[in-house]
Amino acid sequence: MLQRAAVASAPAHRTGESVVTVLGADGLPLAEAEVTIEQTRHAFAFGNIGFELVPLANGAGRPGDDELAERWLDLFNTATLPFYWAEFEPELGRPHTERLRRAAEWFAARGVALKGHPLAWHTLAPEWLLSLTTDEVEAAQRARIRREVADFAGLIDTWDAINEVVIMPVFDKEENGLTRLARERGRIPTIRLAFEEARAANPRATLLLNDFDLSSAYECLIEGVLEAGIRIDAIGLQTHMHQGYRGEDAMLATVERFARYGLPLHLTETSLVSGALMPRDIVDLNDWQVESWPSTLEGEARQADELVRHYRSLVGHPSVEAITYWGITDRDAWLGAPIGLLRADGTPKPSYDALHALVKGEWWLAPTTIRTDAAGRVRVAGFAGDYEVRAGGAAAPFTLARGADDPVTAALGSARA
Amino acid sequence: MLQRAAVASAPAHRTGESVVTVLGADGLPLAEAEVTIEQTRHAFAFGNIGFELVPLANGAGRPGDDELAERWLDLFNTATLPFYWAEFEPELGRPHTERLRRAAEWFAARGVALKGHPLAWHTLAPEWLLSLTTDEVEAAQRARIRREVADFAGLIDTWDAINEVVIMPVFDKEENGLTRLARERGRIPTIRLAFEEARAANPRATLLLNDFDLSSAYECLIEGVLEAGIRIDAIGLQTHMHQGYRGEDAMLATVERFARYGLPLHLTETSLVSGALMPRDIVDLNDWQVESWPSTLEGEARQADELVRHYRSLVGHPSVEAITYWGITDRDAWLGAPIGLLRADGTPKPSYDALHALVKGEWWLAPTTIRTDAAGRVRVAGFAGDYEVRAGGAAAPFTLARGADDPVTAALGSARA
Repeated sequence: MLQRAAVASAPAHRTGESVVTVLGADGLPLAEAEVTIEQTRHAFAFGNIGFELVPLANGAGRPGDDELAERWLDLFNTATLPFYWAEFEPELGRPHTERLRRAAEWFAARGVALKGHPLAWHTLAPEWLLSLTTDEVEAAQRARIRREVADFAGLIDTWDAINEVVIMPVFDKEENGLTRLARERGRIPTIRLAFEEARAANPRATLLLNDFDLSSAYECLIEGVLEAGIRIDAIGLQTHMHQGYRGEDAMLATVERFARYGLPLHLTETSLVSGALMPRDIVDLNDWQVESWPSTLEGEARQADELVRHYRSLVGHPSVEAITYWGITDRDAWLGAPIGLLRADGTPKPSYDALHALVKGEWWLAPTTIRTDAAGRVRVAGFAGDYEVRAGGAAAPFTLARGADDPVTAALGSARA
Repeated sequence: MLQRAAVASAPAHRTGESVVTVLGADGLPLAEAEVTIEQTRHAFAFGNIGFELVPLANGAGRPGDDELAERWLDLFNTATLPFYWAEFEPELGRPHTERLRRAAEWFAARGVALKGHPLAWHTLAPEWLLSLTTDEVEAAQRARIRREVADFAGLIDTWDAINEVVIMPVFDKEENGLTRLARERGRIPTIRLAFEEARAANPRATLLLNDFDLSSAYECLIEGVLEAGIRIDAIGLQTHMHQGYRGEDAMLATVERFARYGLPLHLTETSLVSGALMPRDIVDLNDWQVESWPSTLEGEARQADELVRHYRSLVGHPSVEAITYWGITDRDAWLGAPIGLLRADGTPKPSYDALHALVKGEWWLAPTTIRTDAAGRVRVAGFAGDYEVRAGGAAAPFTLARGADDPVTAALGSARA
C-alpha cells in the first residue's frame, strides 16, 4: 500500500489527492526512498491589504516594519494594493505608478499574488474631476483604467474593476465625478465601461464587481449586469463587521444568495474588531468617529474566536475562492478601529495566532516524511495548492488541484541549492 | 378680452389652457352667448381599488353598497381589480373570468378606467403550481397572462404585469411556484416573460413593473430591465404607510430617484391609517396581526391632513401620472387597518371629504357660466381632462391636454337629451 501524507483536516471541496511519482536525478522512479512532502502555498487566496507595507517596499520602512512584513508574509498569500484614484493621481497626469510598482514587485518577489483596489469608485475620486463635463469624466475614467491595468499587467492581474455601484448614483455625502457619471449614464453602462477598459488592457485579468451592499439590491445589479452581457470574473462581497460578527448562518445564507450566479465569490474586505462594537444604528460606518478605540482583552478573545469561525464557514463553501482581511495592525486601521491581527505595537493578538494555526496549521501539510514504493510513488492529500517533495538535498515542486485525483510526477532532477 | 373659466388652483405641469370656440346647432360660432363650462373627468388617474364593489357588480351587493358605490364614483376615476391568481383560478382551468368581467363592465359603464393587478406574483400564486416542474410553471404563468390580458383587452388596458420582483426569488415565507421560477431563471428573465406575454396579448396595454421595495434594489432592477431591452410603460411604486406618513420631502426624494428613468410613475398602492400606527420595527407589514385596529378621532384628523399633503406633493411632480388609494372603507381593509376613507359603517371620514375637496373642488373646474365673444370664443384653464360646454339645453365635450394651448372647438350640434 502507498504511504500517504495528508493534511490534518480540511473543508470539503478544498482538497485534492494525488499519487505522486518521484523521479530521481537520473530520471528514474526513486524507489523505496524516504522523501519529505511539504506544502508551499495555498491555491485559496488568503489575502490581506498590503497598504501598510508600501513604505517599506519603497525604502521608507518605519520601525517595526520588518517584523510586520515577516508576520504578514507568514500568514497571507495575496495582497490588495491601494489604487484610490484621488491618492494615486492627486494631480492630473502625475500618477504614483512607480511607488505602487515597487510595492507590487516587493510582494511578488516574496511569492505573493496581487490585487488592485479599486479602478472606479465615487469615494476618493479625484477632486479635479468636478470641473470636467460628464463626457470628460467618462474619458478620464476610461483612460485611468487602461493605464493602470496595462502598466501592471503580469504583476497585478486581479482588480476590483468598480466598487460600490449600488450606492454610486445616489451617494449624497459629497459631490464627485463618479456619482454624476453613474447617475447620468446608469449603473450598468458605468460598470460596462470599467470592465471594457480593464478587459481590453489585460485580457487575462480577473475582474471583480465589489460591493458592501449585500442586500437584494446587489443581486438585482448583478442580474442586470449579467443580462447585459458584461462578463465579470468574480463577485466581490465586503464584510466589515465593526458592528459585530454576523455569524455563520447569516454569512452562509448571504454567500448562498450570491453563489447562485455560478461565479467565484471573493470576500474582499473582511474585518472584525477586538474592542467595543460600533452601535448597530450607525448606517454608514464612516459616521462613527471616536477619539480612541482600544483593543481589549475580552475583545481580542472574541475576535480570535469569530475570525476562525468566519474563515471555517467561508472556506467551507465551494464558491468562495478568496478572503481578504482588511488590515494587519491597529496602527493605521480604517476608522481607528482595532481590527488588526497585530496590536499597534506589532505584537500578535490571539486572532493572528488562531488564524495562523488554522491556515498554516490545521489546513496546511507540514513537512511529512514518508517512504516511496517500488515504483517511486507516494500518495499526497491536502488543500489545493503548491507542494514540494524533497530527498537527498534535491527538491521538486508539484501541484494539487481542487478535487484532483490524477497522478502527478515530481522530478528531483532539477535540484535546488 | 375673452372671458375665462379657470380652476381655482393647480400644481404646475398639470393644467392646460385653450381658447374654445363654441359652435351652435347651426354649425356657426355661438357669439355673445352665455355658456356653462364644467369639467367632467381628470386625465390624472385618481384611482382606488374596486375590490369592494365586485359583489355589487355581480348582483350580490351588501347593505350599504349603493352608497359606497356612489361615494367611490364621486371621487375616483380609475379602478384596480383583483386578479390574484390563487383566487382567480383556484382550480386549474376554471378561472373566475366572468365575475371579473362583470365588475370591469360595471365600472366602465360608469366612466371608470380599469387596471388589473397583478398578472404575476409569488404571493397568492396558486398552490397547484407547486406540483409542476419549473418549465411547467413558466408555461402556466405565460398562458395565464395571455388569457387574462386577451380576455379583457379593450376593457382593462392597464396591468401590473409583475409584482414585487425584488424580493420574489428570495421570498421565504412560504413555498410557491413563482419564487422557484424567479430563483432558477433570474429576475429579469421572469420579468421578460411577463411583459412579453402581456404585450403580445394586448399591444395597446400600459404595462407596469410594481414594487413595494423603493430602495436602490428597485433602481438596480429597473436599470437591468431597461438595459435588457424590456419595454415597461410605467414604474409602479407602492406606498403602504401603516407605520406613518413618510412626509413630502422623503416621498419626493423617492419619486425623483425613479423619475430619472424618464418613465411615468404610478403610485399604485397608497394607504394611510386613521388609527394607531404600526410599530416601525415591523419589516413585513403582514406580520402585524391585531384583534382590533380602530379608527380614532385623532387618527382621522391626521389621516385627512396627511392624505391631502401626500396628494398635493405627488400630483405636483410632473412624472407622476396615477395615484391609487388602497381601499374605500374599513370594512374589509387589508390587515384590518383603518386605512379606508369611509368608516366600516360607511360614513365618510375627514379624509374622504378632504380628498374630495381637493380633487373635485380646488383642482376641479365646477360649472362656470361665462359669455362667448363675437367669434363664439371663451378661454378655459384647468386640470388636463375632459370638459363640457353647455348652452340652451345642448352640450358638447372637449378636452384639455397637459400643457396645451392650442385652440379647440366644441360643437353643440350634437345636443344631448
